[in-house]
Amino acid sequence: MKPVCLVVGAGAGIGGTVGKRFAKEGFHAVLCRRTDNEGLQKLVEDIEKDGGSASGYLLNAVEPNSLEDRIAAIEADIGPIEIVVFNLGAQIGNRALKDTTYKAFELGWRMATFALFRVASALCPLMEERGSGTFLVTSATAAVRGNGGQHSHAAAMGGRRMLCQSLNAEFAPNGIHIAHIIIDGAVDAPDTLGKMLGPKKFQQLRQSKGLEHDGLLLPEKIADTYYHIAQQHRSAWTHEIDLRSFSDRPWWNH
Amino acid sequence: MKPVCLVVGAGAGIGGTVGKRFAKEGFHAVLCRRTDNEGLQKLVEDIEKDGGSASGYLLNAVEPNSLEDRIAAIEADIGPIEIVVFNLGAQIGNRALKDTTYKAFELGWRMATFALFRVASALCPLMEERGSGTFLVTSATAAVRGNGGQHSHAAAMGGRRMLCQSLNAEFAPNGIHIAHIIIDGAVDAPDTLGKMLGPKKFQQLRQSKGLEHDGLLLPEKIADTYYHIAQQHRSAWTHEIDLRSFSDRPWWNH
Amino acid sequence: MKPVCLVVGAGAGIGGTVGKRFAKEGFHAVLCRRTDNEGLQKLVEDIEKDGGSASGYLLNAVEPNSLEDRIAAIEADIGPIEIVVFNLGAQIGNRALKDTTYKAFELGWRMATFALFRVASALCPLMEERGSGTFLVTSATAAVRGNGGQHSHAAAMGGRRMLCQSLNAEFAPNGIHIAHIIIDGAVDAPDTLGKMLGPKKFQQLRQSKGLEHDGLLLPEKIADTYYHIAQQHRSAWTHEIDLRSFSDRPWWNH
Amino acid sequence: MKPVCLVVGAGAGIGGTVGKRFAKEGFHAVLCRRTDNEGLQKLVEDIEKDGGSASGYLLNAVEPNSLEDRIAAIEADIGPIEIVVFNLGAQIGNRALKDTTYKAFELGWRMATFALFRVASALCPLMEERGSGTFLVTSATAAVRGNGGQHSHAAAMGGRRMLCQSLNAEFAPNGIHIAHIIIDGAVDAPDTLGKMLGPKKFQQLRQSKGLEHDGLLLPEKIADTYYHIAQQHRSAWTHEIDLRSFSDRPWWNH
Repeated sequence: MKPVCLVVGAGAGIGGTVGKRFAKEGFHAVLCRRTDNEGLQKLVEDIEKDGGSASGYLLNAVEPNSLEDRIAAIEADIGPIEIVVFNLGAQIGNRALKDTTYKAFELGWRMATFALFRVASALCPLMEERGSGTFLVTSATAAVRGNGGQHSHAAAMGGRRMLCQSLNAEFAPNGIHIAHIIIDGAVDAPDTLGKMLGPKKFQQLRQSKGLEHDGLLLPEKIADTYYHIAQQHRSAWTHEIDLRSFSDRPWWNH
Repeated sequence: MKPVCLVVGAGAGIGGTVGKRFAKEGFHAVLCRRTDNEGLQKLVEDIEKDGGSASGYLLNAVEPNSLEDRIAAIEADIGPIEIVVFNLGAQIGNRALKDTTYKAFELGWRMATFALFRVASALCPLMEERGSGTFLVTSATAAVRGNGGQHSHAAAMGGRRMLCQSLNAEFAPNGIHIAHIIIDGAVDAPDTLGKMLGPKKFQQLRQSKGLEHDGLLLPEKIADTYYHIAQQHRSAWTHEIDLRSFSDRPWWNH
Repeated sequence: MKPVCLVVGAGAGIGGTVGKRFAKEGFHAVLCRRTDNEGLQKLVEDIEKDGGSASGYLLNAVEPNSLEDRIAAIEADIGPIEIVVFNLGAQIGNRALKDTTYKAFELGWRMATFALFRVASALCPLMEERGSGTFLVTSATAAVRGNGGQHSHAAAMGGRRMLCQSLNAEFAPNGIHIAHIIIDGAVDAPDTLGKMLGPKKFQQLRQSKGLEHDGLLLPEKIADTYYHIAQQHRSAWTHEIDLRSFSDRPWWNH
Repeated sequence: MKPVCLVVGAGAGIGGTVGKRFAKEGFHAVLCRRTDNEGLQKLVEDIEKDGGSASGYLLNAVEPNSLEDRIAAIEADIGPIEIVVFNLGAQIGNRALKDTTYKAFELGWRMATFALFRVASALCPLMEERGSGTFLVTSATAAVRGNGGQHSHAAAMGGRRMLCQSLNAEFAPNGIHIAHIIIDGAVDAPDTLGKMLGPKKFQQLRQSKGLEHDGLLLPEKIADTYYHIAQQHRSAWTHEIDLRSFSDRPWWNH
């Protein structure tokens, strides 16, 4: 039986790509996303064609019990979840305070903060009993500094970061590795950035970043580091790490 | 007509004491708290005896429209709110993840993060129109680092801190001063710390902190700094500041 | 006998202005600077005309024993130093690595880091014996983040910040208040910014910052906060605080 | 011709072990340390026995031209330096301010801050011309927070951290990867921790950390992450990362 890697937020960017990578390394990847069943099935098929194994589920993370029931089913039917890639985003673009509804603000928290709390509540007791487990939590610049138009996103991500530190304090000594991974730049991801910008602007952005096309963070390169962190020996664990393109300025410089 | 200082979370610790101080300096203090009408009326009377003016309201901040309606009524009936002392706490003591219910986690966010967003949504447009206004946001160690048992508190306060930075980015250039004040230690506050510890332990803690009784943060001394920040000229505003007793270690040293 | 406020780096910007303020509040101000005896004497005369008392000394802080001897002489001849305003800067403008000589890099450290260590080594034992004392350490954005061209400045200021935290850890419990004050923006200071830019560009910058002339940090407004911090009761001390103009973006937003 | 990995500070802990690892991965390791020629030669022999290639040099990093001359000689005689592992420490144990001499304070800076500046000044222009290069800078908890007894160490490491950020801002866009690696805990290193504690206390500490002996950071596990960072694609570089044992608390929790 293969160990299970659960990806919450498995679109065509970081989530799906990291899922593929863990599948290639011998994990059974369980890919969850909210919409686009076709895209999801394609991801599963790509993994299987590549010799890996995967399952895909549509799941609305903000609905009560959606995450809890899925986790229970995976543990019962597929096997113990060793790795969680928590990759739900809450970026809604820049919005002035007056354009940020209560609903949008709450939704940001439900996606980015509360959903992680729910997944941790469901899985940490199991991982603790097994003496091991890994949370790879995708995070964003907004987790370390607020900015104009980021009211919802920054509040949600700042909560996520502090939650990761609290989970680490309680669970690291019991063998659960919590890593907070700050993606500090735009990702070459058609499902998120591509949709936000539209196809034309997205392509322009890609091209403007240079001939070699690595001015955006490439998901498969991000996946290298996710996999490395999951492989770290417990005598030398990383809790926080940043990732950005060489050509981009870090958040503290702009 | 006196300028108005609205205190959200006006217990017998920081909130009430800061309210008294602003009343003494010529503001009409509007004191809001959830329970203990007797204590609230006593605060108002104390202020009036002292020659100041104040109003008190019981108000459950997590109820829909409670903050919005109160703010609208103050602006209509009393006068423009110049200062907001946002002092709602969300400390529930240290709780392991398994003892932190979804309800407690959500309540933390509703008190510490969302309530500030609601107050800002109601007041920033008015302050922006008037070209001035001040938010003095009481915050906690948990806003800058998570810790064991702090899942709810740290997630809520981390969100609050990033929200303050986002509000500052949008509104400082329009004359609204947002200050995030990190109270990095135990406050000599019977309503919060006193209730959490019980009267006996609270008294022991006070005494253990030394003869001169200033090993805990004294609310009236905290109020000095709140008042100073509100008085800062706009050419030299503070966004973030920490406060602790001389005898305490800062958060980065323990 | 008046208490003594020693200002190390007393130019026409923050240092001299803070010195004036403390003199006005009843301190004897001892103003030290490297050059411009005329400017220094004018500062002393201005203070005396205003009814205060002050002394001025030219002093090259990087010369061995310069600070130590001056401190010893003040303690012997004038009185106990209660407040140190440590205001030596090390900004040399933006310089590429290849244009930053070993000498410039070392000088930055000698001014911004080592000189503070020397002053602390001379004064902390005396303050400790007296049970009180205050260090108001002017710092800069470069203390919290490095940036292009800031090799010397950021290394020196980053060292200064960590030194302040180390001093605080050892001496706060013994009654010495160490405050690290991040001046996060351009100061309306003819001696430093004015000289770096030249008179014409400096005036243009001032004007570009708006009619009301408070887009730059005004030294007398900065002095308000320096004085406040020195007055804080030891139950509610600030270790770190930032100051910037309302119209400027904080360092984490640019 | 093999690419060269230069290790500055190649003792029996992180430096030597990371050197071995790069040698194993196909680099020629150039190992520099101040003393213990026997230990150095043994490192070189171990690498050669293992099928790798290495050179060893005794070198006093604080002496003028020592680093510069060695770098010039390597570039002339061995080959282009692709990787620098900058591993000079400046930990002198906890010392009260009164026990921290000027000499010790300056030495800390010469080792931890200035030596890095000198190596960067020598190598960055060459790497920039070649369009690539990597600095793996070992750092410490003291780089992010000062503490009691850490006056020299924290000032030196804080300077190092800000220097790394400044180097990154100038050189990352030109293809030079600067990584600041925070070793946030005790390393199982006989040359540093072992010498500081003495053999008996060191063995006690090791044993107290548990049967499986991974409560200390194991150098070979640290080396895994150093190697990973050096392999990161430039579209997803890490600038800052922390490493600690699962059983240790992170710096922000103690």
